Amino acid sequence: MVLPPPVYDPPFRITRASHVVLEVSDLDASQSFYADVLGLILTSRDETTLFFRGIEEACHHSLVLRRSDRQPACARIGMRVLSEQDLDRAEVFFSQDHCPTAWVEVPHQGRTLHITDPVGVPLELCAQMTAVPRMITEFQLHKGGCAQRIDHCQILTPEVRRARDFYMSAGFRLSEYIASADDEVLLGVFLQRKGNPHDIVFFDGAGPRLHHFAYFTPQVHHLLLACDMAGALGFGREVERGPGRHGPGHAMYVYFRDPDGHRVELFNTHYQVMDMENQAVRWDPTDHKLSFPWGLPAQRKWFEEATSFLGVEPRPSTRQSNPLTLEKFLTS
Amino acid sequence: MVLPPPVYDPPFRITRASHVVLEVSDLDASQSFYADVLGLILTSRDETTLFFRGIEEACHHSLVLRRSDRQPACARIGMRVLSEQDLDRAEVFFSQDHCPTAWVEVPHQGRTLHITDPVGVPLELCAQMTAVPRMITEFQLHKGGCAQRIDHCQILTPEVRRARDFYMSAGFRLSEYIASADDEVLLGVFLQRKGNPHDIVFFDGAGPRLHHFAYFTPQVHHLLLACDMAGALGFGREVERGPGRHGPGHAMYVYFRDPDGHRVELFNTHYQVMDMENQAVRWDPTDHKLSFPWGLPAQRKWFEEATSFLGVEPRPSTRQSNPLTLEKFLTS
Amino acid sequence: MVLPPPVYDPPFRITRASHVVLEVSDLDASQSFYADVLGLILTSRDETTLFFRGIEEACHHSLVLRRSDRQPACARIGMRVLSEQDLDRAEVFFSQDHCPTAWVEVPHQGRTLHITDPVGVPLELCAQMTAVPRMITEFQLHKGGCAQRIDHCQILTPEVRRARDFYMSAGFRLSEYIASADDEVLLGVFLQRKGNPHDIVFFDGAGPRLHHFAYFTPQVHHLLLACDMAGALGFGREVERGPGRHGPGHAMYVYFRDPDGHRVELFNTHYQVMDMENQAVRWDPTDHKLSFPWGLPAQRKWFEEATSFLGVEPRPSTRQSNPLTLEKFLTS
Amino acid sequence: MVLPPPVYDPPFRITRASHVVLEVSDLDASQSFYADVLGLILTSRDETTLFFRGIEEACHHSLVLRRSDRQPACARIGMRVLSEQDLDRAEVFFSQDHCPTAWVEVPHQGRTLHITDPVGVPLELCAQMTAVPRMITEFQLHKGGCAQRIDHCQILTPEVRRARDFYMSAGFRLSEYIASADDEVLLGVFLQRKGNPHDIVFFDGAGPRLHHFAYFTPQVHHLLLACDMAGALGFGREVERGPGRHGPGHAMYVYFRDPDGHRVELFNTHYQVMDMENQAVRWDPTDHKLSFPWGLPAQRKWFEEATSFLGVEPRPSTRQSNPLTLEKFLTS
Repeated sequence: MVLPPPVYDPPFRITRASHVVLEVSDLDASQSFYADVLGLILTSRDETTLFFRGIEEACHHSLVLRRSDRQPACARIGMRVLSEQDLDRAEVFFSQDHCPTAWVEVPHQGRTLHITDPVGVPLELCAQMTAVPRMITEFQLHKGGCAQRIDHCQILTPEVRRARDFYMSAGFRLSEYIASADDEVLLGVFLQRKGNPHDIVFFDGAGPRLHHFAYFTPQVHHLLLACDMAGALGFGREVERGPGRHGPGHAMYVYFRDPDGHRVELFNTHYQVMDMENQAVRWDPTDHKLSFPWGLPAQRKWFEEATSFLGVEPRPSTRQSNPLTLEKFLTS
Repeated sequence: MVLPPPVYDPPFRITRASHVVLEVSDLDASQSFYADVLGLILTSRDETTLFFRGIEEACHHSLVLRRSDRQPACARIGMRVLSEQDLDRAEVFFSQDHCPTAWVEVPHQGRTLHITDPVGVPLELCAQMTAVPRMITEFQLHKGGCAQRIDHCQILTPEVRRARDFYMSAGFRLSEYIASADDEVLLGVFLQRKGNPHDIVFFDGAGPRLHHFAYFTPQVHHLLLACDMAGALGFGREVERGPGRHGPGHAMYVYFRDPDGHRVELFNTHYQVMDMENQAVRWDPTDHKLSFPWGLPAQRKWFEEATSFLGVEPRPSTRQSNPLTLEKFLTS
Repeated sequence: MVLPPPVYDPPFRITRASHVVLEVSDLDASQSFYADVLGLILTSRDETTLFFRGIEEACHHSLVLRRSDRQPACARIGMRVLSEQDLDRAEVFFSQDHCPTAWVEVPHQGRTLHITDPVGVPLELCAQMTAVPRMITEFQLHKGGCAQRIDHCQILTPEVRRARDFYMSAGFRLSEYIASADDEVLLGVFLQRKGNPHDIVFFDGAGPRLHHFAYFTPQVHHLLLACDMAGALGFGREVERGPGRHGPGHAMYVYFRDPDGHRVELFNTHYQVMDMENQAVRWDPTDHKLSFPWGLPAQRKWFEEATSFLGVEPRPSTRQSNPLTLEKFLTS
Repeated sequence: MVLPPPVYDPPFRITRASHVVLEVSDLDASQSFYADVLGLILTSRDETTLFFRGIEEACHHSLVLRRSDRQPACARIGMRVLSEQDLDRAEVFFSQDHCPTAWVEVPHQGRTLHITDPVGVPLELCAQMTAVPRMITEFQLHKGGCAQRIDHCQILTPEVRRARDFYMSAGFRLSEYIASADDEVLLGVFLQRKGNPHDIVFFDGAGPRLHHFAYFTPQVHHLLLACDMAGALGFGREVERGPGRHGPGHAMYVYFRDPDGHRVELFNTHYQVMDMENQAVRWDPTDHKLSFPWGLPAQRKWFEEATSFLGVEPRPSTRQSNPLTLEKFLTS
């Protein structure tokens, strides 16, 4: 497969995946789940909104939960740019690509640019947030999974190739991808800016929908404690997949569904990818050691269920999806 | 449920579960699995037999694998008694209960008594083995799961109540059990001599068959490394269940199938149970938090498949078994 | 060195080290230390007393802290016997050895026998305590070191040999000992009843004094979290030794001084020792890999400072003690 | 203290600390230490040189050990730049600052630029290395500390301020620094390019000398296993400091001395620092919770001993150094 070349001098500099804004039905249930099971720090709460950050994060929020009576949805995916100038350059870049943009005011964030990307994902970019203390050495505040910092989001879309081309033109580097032997099908792409395998991941499927967002966790025992806290606090059935080991990217992971069904991953360790000679790693979708080096594959709903973006109607994938689900595995 | 009283002054003193003797088809495949994935120390190997011990064990073997062309089977379950006198008293005790006994010569063991227990399990008792060095501080020899010492065996039998009564009369204490609300069904019993929850466990099912034997492992990260080594060495599909958390007994576990299909558990931590006031804990079989506090239940074959004892024809259970299998869970 | 033979049929059956009763100056400070740093469960508190237990313990207490304005001291070391009959036999046994005994009422304990052992240690024995729930799966209550259960006490005495002989006659088995090449000096003995390396340990020194008591901890990361919690809560200077690795017994350990200077160890993993063929392991006191396989030796105060027993005047050791202290190591 | 402003558009783009070139006296001893204790992967070895990389590293080497009969020294510190163009721009930049530069051929590296920085550190920059496989999922090859990737170097210099100003002008960001209350003394600066707290660190002292280089390690249990392997393989006395917790940067660490006395750190976890609002964190050198939140301070030699750079004569610091050493702490 011929890949677009890396863009070393991008028109503006996104630095990292930054935050996720979700709509939820019950702030108390969400607070219990994210604070006690995942171990996020509650920065602030008002009548309608919870602002969370990871235990190391010095920015005001990486997860925003807004109470709503609508169908639970993802309002927006947030990314950081390096400087205020980069924001202005981003506006130019996205406009040239006919992506809708708008300047908005967002509490606890600097100037913020709303964008809809070419595959329909509602993004927001900013260069600054309100600074708050890192809690990483406040061990008395650590709970459950000790979610340390947000790492990436995974999006389902019928247009993986388009997403890859667009994000690579914006300076993202392709760390890993999954493609069929005949190059016809591009099943998934892992794209990064911050020097580890992913800031944003796109997989083929009806979309755009948010498959999951992921927090990095210091140690595997924190992953297990998150599971145990889930069990102790009534969220035991929300451990949807794992603990297990990813083939690509090699992380140990657990996937949870939150009280509204939004999927969140905790994972531990990843590798650094920054160097010129680092070619994108290609994976074969028929190699099942990829999706589960040991143990059992994910259940069907892990492949199929995802969170819609607010006001965005998903379109189906033209591809006939055929993952090795747990259901198939058990009857094979 | 009225339980038999503990026998504080038993007629002879079993001290602990000691070893398992299995028949296998390929010594090389077995050695790779038990040495590199589970991390057992190979004490010695000859043309027909592998002798393994855990990294802390100072006795010659806790796992004996004998090459055979027969259907893979368990030849015998081993237990230790405190002294040579206890062996002689054991012979008297079992004979009184009409259990067949025989004195045999077994390499690397002291005087050894073969017995068939009342539910048909072939046991062997001895007071001594050849002493060998503990490898627990020989960190350069530690691999994979670092299996530290054998802990218990679990047996399927249609006669759980009979097994319980017999082993309690032999001085075993009941730490936990699972019974239906109406006292009609005794699903499982955890029996112990060494002061933690189990040396031998009986669950209802066609039997007698060996459901699994279990090694204690120092840390949860060793459990995970065993899984990762299984994946790296071609045994990834043999991770049959877990990593997960047991409700009763609280251990974190992984169940593997060895190259011949024998099931072995690695688990971490257990509690101490020695005191007079420690009543047996009763569990409700309809409480699924018991069998899986979080995540997914075990697949059907985990409930149904087991290793036959050599030359012992299993009898079916009269009870209609109805566990919550993974297969049922996924369609519910 | 000729060792006394093991007594397989002791006159009464101690089962395990059970509890420690300490006098302290400030209940609030002690509670913060033991609950938040070590992670013990507070079973109950009244005006003068804190009762703690480990997270797995089903008995009312394994640590009793009594407020006192006296010099902080250890009031008593507690051990369990198997049955009420064993208590009566213990009284006979100790009286025959001219050890003072007395029957006393102790809250939350069954019939309790006070004894002063031959080297002057005030013991108490009981067969039962008030039963309380195990908190081992109540993950939401786990803190800091997650101290799981009491394991052993270490005593300084000028009469190590006398202590060894007496406790072995009471059915304790010697798992490890430290003696000079010429057999003249018996520096330390590890004595056990419950099947791991130690319930009570005696080392040469001015005494009898309580050198430390020790809780078993599930995982090494709990040891480290105890240290981090100590740092976060103002007890950082009370981490007196470790984290490090013991040569004998192989455990990973941390030693803390509590707010009154009482020393408590957290440690992880130990081996099982139950079998006839398990000879006591002899250590050479001049082998420094024994006391510190890696890193730095303990500071002098770790060797010299200890807690007096209430009303018991320590006598000096006749032996010239000469351990390799950190102070010496740094100037060598 | 007025700090230089961050340079968001640096004249050339260093991406990360990349490698260290050391001279050693015995390749076999060095190989045993770095492969078995630290767990580095040996990429290749010839008569005079060992090339090592971390278990996740896809580049040919991050540690080069050259046999020499001279006094053990550090030949050079390596850094990566983003592209070949950045190399050319680096040459211009350093030349403008009157730093000597030279283009050299280095095996397994692309075009390489040698530079002496303003405080005398011999650097080398390149954009590419020979690509090799990541071993991060080859669990059967993992040993000891599982050193995952190189993270940073720490340099002693009498010119901390000059180093800070120069590296910040080259695009490094200051994440943390230690300064006296009166702003007179700048004790240490942590400078980074890759988005975590440090790629290069300068502390006040006779120099330039290499205080240590550091590898990131996946989990704290790998730190402990590195110590245990050191003990098992005869390097137990080379565990110079730790395991302990850093106040600044919060990492858990162990410092080793290699067979030639070069100091190497293994540490686990660090935080991400990329955002505009992340101000440099200032530390007070009189706050001892900074240097040791719990436990004991470092021994004097940790503060004073370091590796000279090949052919570079260290100059003394004009500042009267007065750290709280372990030696002082024990007599205070």
